[in-house]
Amino acid sequence: MARTKTIRAAVLGASGYTGADMIRLAALHPAIKITALIAKGHAGQSLAQVFPHLASLDLPALVSPEQADWDEVDIAFCGLPHGTAHSEIGKLPKRIKIIDMSADFRLRDPNAYAAWYANEHSAPALIKEAVYGLTEHYRDKIKGARLVACPGCYPTGVLLALLPLVKAKLIETSDIIIDAKSGVSGAGRGLKQNILFPEAGEGLSPYGIGNHRHVPEIEQELGVAARSPVTVNFTPHLAPMSRGELCTSYVRLAGKASAGDLRKALTASYAKSPFLRIVEEGAIPATQHVRGSNFCHIGIFADRIPGRAIVVSTIDNLVKGSAGQALQNFNVMYGLDETTGLDQLPLFP
Amino acid sequence: MARTKTIRAAVLGASGYTGADMIRLAALHPAIKITALIAKGHAGQSLAQVFPHLASLDLPALVSPEQADWDEVDIAFCGLPHGTAHSEIGKLPKRIKIIDMSADFRLRDPNAYAAWYANEHSAPALIKEAVYGLTEHYRDKIKGARLVACPGCYPTGVLLALLPLVKAKLIETSDIIIDAKSGVSGAGRGLKQNILFPEAGEGLSPYGIGNHRHVPEIEQELGVAARSPVTVNFTPHLAPMSRGELCTSYVRLAGKASAGDLRKALTASYAKSPFLRIVEEGAIPATQHVRGSNFCHIGIFADRIPGRAIVVSTIDNLVKGSAGQALQNFNVMYGLDETTGLDQLPLFP
Amino acid sequence: MARTKTIRAAVLGASGYTGADMIRLAALHPAIKITALIAKGHAGQSLAQVFPHLASLDLPALVSPEQADWDEVDIAFCGLPHGTAHSEIGKLPKRIKIIDMSADFRLRDPNAYAAWYANEHSAPALIKEAVYGLTEHYRDKIKGARLVACPGCYPTGVLLALLPLVKAKLIETSDIIIDAKSGVSGAGRGLKQNILFPEAGEGLSPYGIGNHRHVPEIEQELGVAARSPVTVNFTPHLAPMSRGELCTSYVRLAGKASAGDLRKALTASYAKSPFLRIVEEGAIPATQHVRGSNFCHIGIFADRIPGRAIVVSTIDNLVKGSAGQALQNFNVMYGLDETTGLDQLPLFP
Amino acid sequence: MARTKTIRAAVLGASGYTGADMIRLAALHPAIKITALIAKGHAGQSLAQVFPHLASLDLPALVSPEQADWDEVDIAFCGLPHGTAHSEIGKLPKRIKIIDMSADFRLRDPNAYAAWYANEHSAPALIKEAVYGLTEHYRDKIKGARLVACPGCYPTGVLLALLPLVKAKLIETSDIIIDAKSGVSGAGRGLKQNILFPEAGEGLSPYGIGNHRHVPEIEQELGVAARSPVTVNFTPHLAPMSRGELCTSYVRLAGKASAGDLRKALTASYAKSPFLRIVEEGAIPATQHVRGSNFCHIGIFADRIPGRAIVVSTIDNLVKGSAGQALQNFNVMYGLDETTGLDQLPLFP
Repeated sequence: MARTKTIRAAVLGASGYTGADMIRLAALHPAIKITALIAKGHAGQSLAQVFPHLASLDLPALVSPEQADWDEVDIAFCGLPHGTAHSEIGKLPKRIKIIDMSADFRLRDPNAYAAWYANEHSAPALIKEAVYGLTEHYRDKIKGARLVACPGCYPTGVLLALLPLVKAKLIETSDIIIDAKSGVSGAGRGLKQNILFPEAGEGLSPYGIGNHRHVPEIEQELGVAARSPVTVNFTPHLAPMSRGELCTSYVRLAGKASAGDLRKALTASYAKSPFLRIVEEGAIPATQHVRGSNFCHIGIFADRIPGRAIVVSTIDNLVKGSAGQALQNFNVMYGLDETTGLDQLPLFP
Repeated sequence: MARTKTIRAAVLGASGYTGADMIRLAALHPAIKITALIAKGHAGQSLAQVFPHLASLDLPALVSPEQADWDEVDIAFCGLPHGTAHSEIGKLPKRIKIIDMSADFRLRDPNAYAAWYANEHSAPALIKEAVYGLTEHYRDKIKGARLVACPGCYPTGVLLALLPLVKAKLIETSDIIIDAKSGVSGAGRGLKQNILFPEAGEGLSPYGIGNHRHVPEIEQELGVAARSPVTVNFTPHLAPMSRGELCTSYVRLAGKASAGDLRKALTASYAKSPFLRIVEEGAIPATQHVRGSNFCHIGIFADRIPGRAIVVSTIDNLVKGSAGQALQNFNVMYGLDETTGLDQLPLFP
Repeated sequence: MARTKTIRAAVLGASGYTGADMIRLAALHPAIKITALIAKGHAGQSLAQVFPHLASLDLPALVSPEQADWDEVDIAFCGLPHGTAHSEIGKLPKRIKIIDMSADFRLRDPNAYAAWYANEHSAPALIKEAVYGLTEHYRDKIKGARLVACPGCYPTGVLLALLPLVKAKLIETSDIIIDAKSGVSGAGRGLKQNILFPEAGEGLSPYGIGNHRHVPEIEQELGVAARSPVTVNFTPHLAPMSRGELCTSYVRLAGKASAGDLRKALTASYAKSPFLRIVEEGAIPATQHVRGSNFCHIGIFADRIPGRAIVVSTIDNLVKGSAGQALQNFNVMYGLDETTGLDQLPLFP
Repeated sequence: MARTKTIRAAVLGASGYTGADMIRLAALHPAIKITALIAKGHAGQSLAQVFPHLASLDLPALVSPEQADWDEVDIAFCGLPHGTAHSEIGKLPKRIKIIDMSADFRLRDPNAYAAWYANEHSAPALIKEAVYGLTEHYRDKIKGARLVACPGCYPTGVLLALLPLVKAKLIETSDIIIDAKSGVSGAGRGLKQNILFPEAGEGLSPYGIGNHRHVPEIEQELGVAARSPVTVNFTPHLAPMSRGELCTSYVRLAGKASAGDLRKALTASYAKSPFLRIVEEGAIPATQHVRGSNFCHIGIFADRIPGRAIVVSTIDNLVKGSAGQALQNFNVMYGLDETTGLDQLPLFP
């Protein structure tokens, strides 16, 4: 496992939650040396000022993109907000590899991007180059990629649960209902009234009903698997916790498929995926069981309505849903064991 | 509104959360005089010892059912656990009215009760007498009842949202999927590991998938409205908050019905129901907005899957979902204005 | 208790937490008719838009101070931030009574105000007129006041516990150490990074060590009671809850005084104060026990260090610490029973 | 750092929170092989059943102490409750090293133990052998110890902040006031009403005022440092979070010492202690900044009362306050680098 820290990495968006978790994980990765922390609004500040919990790390102060010495960078982990990422990434030297955690390179259709994100894409050529970074399903493509677009947190939780079922034609794609719940860190570190502690605490509500930006991404990937367009219901909810995401997917079984068949297909699909765990029958996935780790737990249950089933998947939105999956993709890109630097066990309680 | 406090009430199960909220509300009701607080395991203790937040009330100490002077009681609010309630209620003098917040008299079929609650019913005759206490839908029957069985918290949230739609034949009853989320107080005050703060805090998970005891109650009432048996999916989730319940119901529209039709039907149905509020288009129900109050907020949204809609309803599980609805039923039984003693506004933040 | 709603009230700062709780309480007060809701940045919005939990109230839309019809106002409850309040209040017609919940009229010395709040006071004449609104200690002056300056939440919790002890010379004023803890709503509804849910949740830290603005107010009032200047240590902490404040005061006993003497003095001092409760020996004050109510619970404990004692007081920072005390002062000003409109029991759990 | 996993460890009390965090940390330690998980009440269960968050570990099922094969154990990490630990540890073969996280071997005086814990000690001989495991202050003794008694979580937080100051005679030992706040996991995983989510959530209160069992431990160690008996005030509070502990210590400066002198002494004292961090002037320790890690952050502040200062220290009660410090002591005992297996960065948000 011991390797010299020879791959030089920059973290863009180092002052956000995604950036923080990226630094937390990358700093302990045996092959990575963090050479630049980039955050426009915090240039000149030390990491301890921006994130006191990372004060023990001996890392350079934050700089603006212009101040960064890109000659010292082999790979850029990009945790910028959507809309900002595509222009910043477009400016980087071509020899730098990029693992992007924003939404800017996930949708293969620039028009869909423009429509859902109300923003003209400035680097459509890069979209073609980008590989969708859902590690368990795109390992081969990720291996040779220069630019990996990590999935959104919700698409990660949803697709890990549903892609194998759609591929195996075990569920109907015309009737997929996903009720998702996320911790508040999913909304980012920007200042918004609804995520103030007294507003979000002790409360729960849906949001983005019918128009959440993770919908086109989910439909894109399910459509590829189904080889035909898919329309889903996806209703996210904000829950009073900092981390964690749970997706409860209500599906109609195809033909004579049973909940047991779904279980078998998922188990087989992830037999060689160390972060995926199909929980035992009777056990129930819970966000607490994956907090702080790169694991995804999935449970399968028969529905009371005949011909239907429920698939429950849970991840830490900032780890498997963002920075952890980014690091997993890094490992794949560099031919390392997929779990390198990702052996953190969940923090419970 | 000022009335002499002439109706003498006992609270059974006075040491639980339902009992506490019953006392909180009844103590300020202008017509109620609380004459007995009953809790077997806490007999002899003062209310301040059991619930320090109620220490300002000048009420008698807790007693066991045997110690209670039933001659001083006109009506009993029963907050006992299911399985205990039916035998305790069966022993009460017939002249005492009863508003039961347990599950024991909700199911009209004693066999269904025995099957779902693993418990032979000791007072099947009383089941026949009992009126289902979903106030907005059973006002007339409640008016003349001696024994009212208040709905469970989940059935309250679900049925208030769906009953008018089923009655108006606006949704298909073969495909109703309810994803519910509840605060931890819904699990009661008994000692269980999964509701310890470090277990439930910062975490979210489904439970009782496919076999929650509120299912037969929901199906019973929807079946009555539909005039034929109904099977629903009902999947509750435990969320890290003390109070509050949110039900996200995914429904298939009947014929050419639209989300707008659902909105109209719900608005019309509750035009004279002071605690029901159909939120404006674009607004989103949230548990924070009803906390501590007897309100139920309902929102209606078009689904992305054609022919489907989403109905979101929220209540405080201990108020409209239990003690508040009990008091509302009391008002109906005694010919008082339905809002008497229930004017508390939600506590936010 | 029933009175016609004849006193017309405006709420300034109607879009903040203090404003919200003021509306929540005043709307149910039997003598108050709310005629204006004022919030500069939200003029034109309905109350339901700004505070969906208050949507059931039939109140006018929010207006700017300029748009308000002051002829329709007898009394103004002012929940503006410090620094804004003094200039807005200075503009009001003299016939309008004012209950100010900001910090602007609490300090009797305009220079102290300027120093602590980095802000020149625009209405020093009004400072002289203002009465400090710690109801239990200034009832007589409040009765005849036109302008009442309600104490800060911390001074309320601290002074209710310590004033009677200083007045009775039972504790040394040279060695008062107050460790205070507050819920996050105390920081207001303005957007600040440290009160985002993911920052404040599951975390606890001190703040404003040695320079919190409530210090001069505490020292002013203790100094008046002691008839000589007093310097205290006051260290507030932010705790991961929305409401609630707990002050743990570590005091040195004067002469031969004992913890029992403190208990007696506090009990006697508040014998006729309906919201003050000295908890029984062995019982422990907790923020949960006063949440949402105007109560203050106080406990007295012997210290392990000889000659010292601990006094623990708790209030809801938004009620007794702000809007509730404002309404209590209103009752005193208008000769009503002090508890009118303030009979809400604490919300637990 | 890479070492073969040759030291075989048992975890006693594997079903509690301390046990869980011990397993979380030890499982990734390069030199440790966990050969036994012991928990009387859970014998026969898999670790995944008891702690689903640890399901990814390939570890043996839980066994009772009688079932354990002690021949396969070199060292026992003991996370049993006080009162149970001393008898279980007394039964172990003498060749097995022991790192005890209970309270049973912390007090050097068996009579003090009997008095504070209401429990006769069954292994007083072992008390003499035990070394107090506050790593930073007892490294040399720990190195050669067979039985290490890890400090309680509160003593760890308090002593790390105060011991260097007492040793350097910078503070008066007659007037030490410690206001401590802890997350709920500090109360253990046993079922108690006050730690149910709805009871502890959104609330804060002191407890064990004047009689908390960590007091004699704090006084013992401060007394050793001062070379004379010390009596402190120690008042812990329960805060609504799962992990984290913050100790605010109010101290009187000795002679002409200043807050700056305290800072210098602490900085010098911990210059070679990798987990201790004196935060920069102006920065404020917060539990969020150490969560899940073995760090202790300390801040020093001048008091407003002349001649006094405030020292704020924070740790994760389950890591540096328990399992992390145990592992740190393990490293010292086996001559490993103190940070081995303890490089987890804090989890924020």
